[in-house]
Amino acid sequence: MTLLQVFLFFILFSSFSNADLLQDFCVADLNFPQGLAGYPCKSLSNVTVDDFVFTGFRNPGNTSNINMFSVAPGFVAQWPAVNGLGISVVYAELAPGGRFPVHTHPGGTELIVVIEGTIIAGFISSSNKAYTKKLEAYEAMIFPQGLLHFQVNTGSVKAKLLASFSSPNPGVQTISTALFGNDLASDILEQVSSIDVAEVKKLKAMFGGTN
Amino acid sequence: MTLLQVFLFFILFSSFSNADLLQDFCVADLNFPQGLAGYPCKSLSNVTVDDFVFTGFRNPGNTSNINMFSVAPGFVAQWPAVNGLGISVVYAELAPGGRFPVHTHPGGTELIVVIEGTIIAGFISSSNKAYTKKLEAYEAMIFPQGLLHFQVNTGSVKAKLLASFSSPNPGVQTISTALFGNDLASDILEQVSSIDVAEVKKLKAMFGGTN
Amino acid sequence: MTLLQVFLFFILFSSFSNADLLQDFCVADLNFPQGLAGYPCKSLSNVTVDDFVFTGFRNPGNTSNINMFSVAPGFVAQWPAVNGLGISVVYAELAPGGRFPVHTHPGGTELIVVIEGTIIAGFISSSNKAYTKKLEAYEAMIFPQGLLHFQVNTGSVKAKLLASFSSPNPGVQTISTALFGNDLASDILEQVSSIDVAEVKKLKAMFGGTN
Amino acid sequence: MTLLQVFLFFILFSSFSNADLLQDFCVADLNFPQGLAGYPCKSLSNVTVDDFVFTGFRNPGNTSNINMFSVAPGFVAQWPAVNGLGISVVYAELAPGGRFPVHTHPGGTELIVVIEGTIIAGFISSSNKAYTKKLEAYEAMIFPQGLLHFQVNTGSVKAKLLASFSSPNPGVQTISTALFGNDLASDILEQVSSIDVAEVKKLKAMFGGTN
Amino acid sequence: MTLLQVFLFFILFSSFSNADLLQDFCVADLNFPQGLAGYPCKSLSNVTVDDFVFTGFRNPGNTSNINMFSVAPGFVAQWPAVNGLGISVVYAELAPGGRFPVHTHPGGTELIVVIEGTIIAGFISSSNKAYTKKLEAYEAMIFPQGLLHFQVNTGSVKAKLLASFSSPNPGVQTISTALFGNDLASDILEQVSSIDVAEVKKLKAMFGGTN
Amino acid sequence: MTLLQVFLFFILFSSFSNADLLQDFCVADLNFPQGLAGYPCKSLSNVTVDDFVFTGFRNPGNTSNINMFSVAPGFVAQWPAVNGLGISVVYAELAPGGRFPVHTHPGGTELIVVIEGTIIAGFISSSNKAYTKKLEAYEAMIFPQGLLHFQVNTGSVKAKLLASFSSPNPGVQTISTALFGNDLASDILEQVSSIDVAEVKKLKAMFGGTN
Repeated sequence: MTLLQVFLFFILFSSFSNADLLQDFCVADLNFPQGLAGYPCKSLSNVTVDDFVFTGFRNPGNTSNINMFSVAPGFVAQWPAVNGLGISVVYAELAPGGRFPVHTHPGGTELIVVIEGTIIAGFISSSNKAYTKKLEAYEAMIFPQGLLHFQVNTGSVKAKLLASFSSPNPGVQTISTALFGNDLASDILEQVSSIDVAEVKKLKAMFGGTN
Repeated sequence: MTLLQVFLFFILFSSFSNADLLQDFCVADLNFPQGLAGYPCKSLSNVTVDDFVFTGFRNPGNTSNINMFSVAPGFVAQWPAVNGLGISVVYAELAPGGRFPVHTHPGGTELIVVIEGTIIAGFISSSNKAYTKKLEAYEAMIFPQGLLHFQVNTGSVKAKLLASFSSPNPGVQTISTALFGNDLASDILEQVSSIDVAEVKKLKAMFGGTN
Repeated sequence: MTLLQVFLFFILFSSFSNADLLQDFCVADLNFPQGLAGYPCKSLSNVTVDDFVFTGFRNPGNTSNINMFSVAPGFVAQWPAVNGLGISVVYAELAPGGRFPVHTHPGGTELIVVIEGTIIAGFISSSNKAYTKKLEAYEAMIFPQGLLHFQVNTGSVKAKLLASFSSPNPGVQTISTALFGNDLASDILEQVSSIDVAEVKKLKAMFGGTN
Repeated sequence: MTLLQVFLFFILFSSFSNADLLQDFCVADLNFPQGLAGYPCKSLSNVTVDDFVFTGFRNPGNTSNINMFSVAPGFVAQWPAVNGLGISVVYAELAPGGRFPVHTHPGGTELIVVIEGTIIAGFISSSNKAYTKKLEAYEAMIFPQGLLHFQVNTGSVKAKLLASFSSPNPGVQTISTALFGNDLASDILEQVSSIDVAEVKKLKAMFGGTN
Repeated sequence: MTLLQVFLFFILFSSFSNADLLQDFCVADLNFPQGLAGYPCKSLSNVTVDDFVFTGFRNPGNTSNINMFSVAPGFVAQWPAVNGLGISVVYAELAPGGRFPVHTHPGGTELIVVIEGTIIAGFISSSNKAYTKKLEAYEAMIFPQGLLHFQVNTGSVKAKLLASFSSPNPGVQTISTALFGNDLASDILEQVSSIDVAEVKKLKAMFGGTN
Repeated sequence: MTLLQVFLFFILFSSFSNADLLQDFCVADLNFPQGLAGYPCKSLSNVTVDDFVFTGFRNPGNTSNINMFSVAPGFVAQWPAVNGLGISVVYAELAPGGRFPVHTHPGGTELIVVIEGTIIAGFISSSNKAYTKKLEAYEAMIFPQGLLHFQVNTGSVKAKLLASFSSPNPGVQTISTALFGNDLASDILEQVSSIDVAEVKKLKAMFGGTN
């Protein structure tokens, strides 16, 4: 890289930043490495109204999977405009009997609104108390950041949900898969879950783990 | 207040705080004065699952008003469980021709999902650029914190919206009402809006202002 | 770009970061794309005392414009040292009769001190209450984040102001220009401002808008 | 409560706040209800050096329990001086074979330093990858906020650990107890954990749950 | 306190909070104990425009003291409206030869603008580098949070300064007074300052310390 | 740099970011320039368990220096995994008579635990009050952000300490070195420290300063 190239490199960057001095928003430029608070901003001159509109919910996919759910996420990876704005949104469907298994969002609170159908939803607090409720259409429930929670369609029709999050990228950790879907040694798992090693191996088989 | 009473006063408070040492959530106790980040927490022993469930969207009210909208808010005042969790939610309906006039939320970003109907929505950036779009059912749009924005039902059927916010209490400032619906002197308003005083007085009449 | 060049590219970056491991401050390097919280830091080896000194107030410009004001901003774009430090400053002058039209700062609170002259200043709360006051020299007033506010020189001499902000880049949205100074369709504007379309077109002409 | 009493009540509060106008620290007054960011501050006139010193690690208790650990916590409930300072600390011992079962801290990152002994520690990421390592004395490991993690003493001597947290009150949720140690209906648990109901009932018996 | 009194107590609090559900601002109620982020909010019904106006700079006091300065602070204790707004302001005068001795603000960045006169100002970074500059009227300088800094009037006329801070309550720690103006044992001070005990005792005498 | 090279440059960056869409952690990539909140994240595909383990305490170095201490820091520069996680850790040893001279951490609170030995530790508040205490093994003390503090080994054996910080990069400013170890003019120092110029020059000689 010659000095000229170094110079051109800065020109390149300069062309990005010149228009960005006011910062009403920061549409993520996913080409750059992620920072602590999210992504660097896409150049303002490349931002159009379509960046602020999300159409990913129109075709939510089918529910032909083991958990009988479909999920259309609107996190920063799918909708770069939410970058830095402290919010994101997901559309989900649960076939009758479908469920979101017990999971946590390490980085944000979840707030769901049922659009159609009937579900049972719940979370478990640090004091091991379960807060569960049957929810009908147009009822809402909140699951505080980091706590174990779940949703099950207990009705006879498809359930439709909108879930908002207090972060553009709240993350998700599904407990069964996290514990039994990897290569963590079975004897260690026995020790840290108090489940005997035979049962651990059975669960590993169920969730795709090894060792 | 005797010393005994002071003592009892602290016993009273102690009974609140003993169970609260772990803080998974902080359901607002609206009886206390509001602090900078929200309300003090309701005692954990009084918290039930019903605190985390919001049913205020079931009867959204009618749209027989000048703007032809109905709004069912789920902010901290209506749903104390959102206190401190960085999120809130509103359900709204717009009759055909109904609108949310130009307004800002000083304290949070808004993210809407259209459930039914067709609207035109938009916001205006600091560089005075308007970002507007026609949205159909299951399309979403984001309005960054503090910027002027609006929604209009341009379709022929009622539009239904869910709006999430990145704050339990984002606030709202509707521009026309804020400018012309109070007692601010008309000559000052003329000076700071570049609208002549006759027009200012006409707008004051329209929006309920005096002076 | 050969592998050697990629290697050299990282050497280039390394030379930036080696001296930066302690971070007392983060003078903005405006050549890089802006991030959510501001700009990446200029290399410490290139930082001198002159980065921390701002001289942009010495020649504040004239007030020969329609609003009869001059503004010398000391935001991050003009004074990169404020990057990440949660503060910035502006010096402004208002000729007699001059004004800062109604505007908001979506990203910060403003605090003014009158240095010379007499002004009327005010802001409007979410409950549409106007808080206005005549201010003399060495009086101060605060305008909370995101709320509509304005200043008018009601005296007979030039007014001089220092305005501090709780953000290196608070942004500004002047209402009349934002509403009427762009290409937003007049019929939409009529619907969202409750101002009839003839008046909207008149205001568009006044503020430079089209459509 | 007479008007005089109301007056005295405010005098009482005033006596608290008069000395507190500078805020180098905010030792928690646990008598007040907890707020979002922690507790109100103890009156400065009652603060002594002993508030800033914590002696709770001198007698860490025995390890004669099912998990063979002892824990001496220095969270805000035990050490009110950490209130608002973004840090807390725990001292723990693990007998040979002892373990901290899989758990999360919803509100903070954990950083451990092994003082004596040998342990295996690990955490699981959102992509279900297990990061595990054997740690000897004076080695440290970090467990990012909200992620599943565990520690096991795999050595032949007692292990001693210091664990710091990035919050005065990070919370803890031990997975097995949280899932199987409460009254959550077994059939719901079967649905959300993909573990058959017989096994669920066995785990409920093991962890003290009902239903 | 009878049950009736407890009831009345809550009525009392309720009367505070009813009007406060929207939170554009949070004027401090200094009668309540301070919390981590500041004070609880004064009831909105008691807030007037005068809360947002500060007149404490009109009579800045004289400079007849050992450091030849006068300071009129506008922190939260003097101006409760800055509570929670991330900003505060101080007006100061320095007689010729006057100075603000080396000090830090543990809780905020300082930004000064010279209104009249000539000063030398400077700060020292973590790498022990001194950044100093002579400043004339209408020049500004920034002192990043927590770093040692000072100002000296090196001119022949009174210097006038406005200092803004990135916190409503940044705190201040003047080094000489902090080290030598208290009862810290002289031999400890010798050990931690590398200044011999005789000199320490001399400095203690100078700054009012004992032991 | 040809267009092809620009294209390849973005491919290069893209390969970094593709795997990083979920952000459980953000191990610092020290090759990039530092941002306000820390460093950009190392590509997830390059992260291994060894990033989360820190072994820098095994060889803490000797105490043969003027202050008779050794320090093994685990800040973001030495342990990139702490980036963005709000915590860091340092291991230190003090020979008998050794000390950490009076210093501040502008960016974080410090919390120490004594592992072996006896020390006297203390901090000084904004009101110039000294809070000092003799600490034995397994006692802890906290030093709030930005305040002057120190530690001295007053025992007869080596003291061992673990110090945690509420920031990955809290910074440090040792007062004597900061004041007297640089090129700040002696007459300015006399004015801002109230120490006569002869003594200032003596201290400059002691701490390596000039002028």
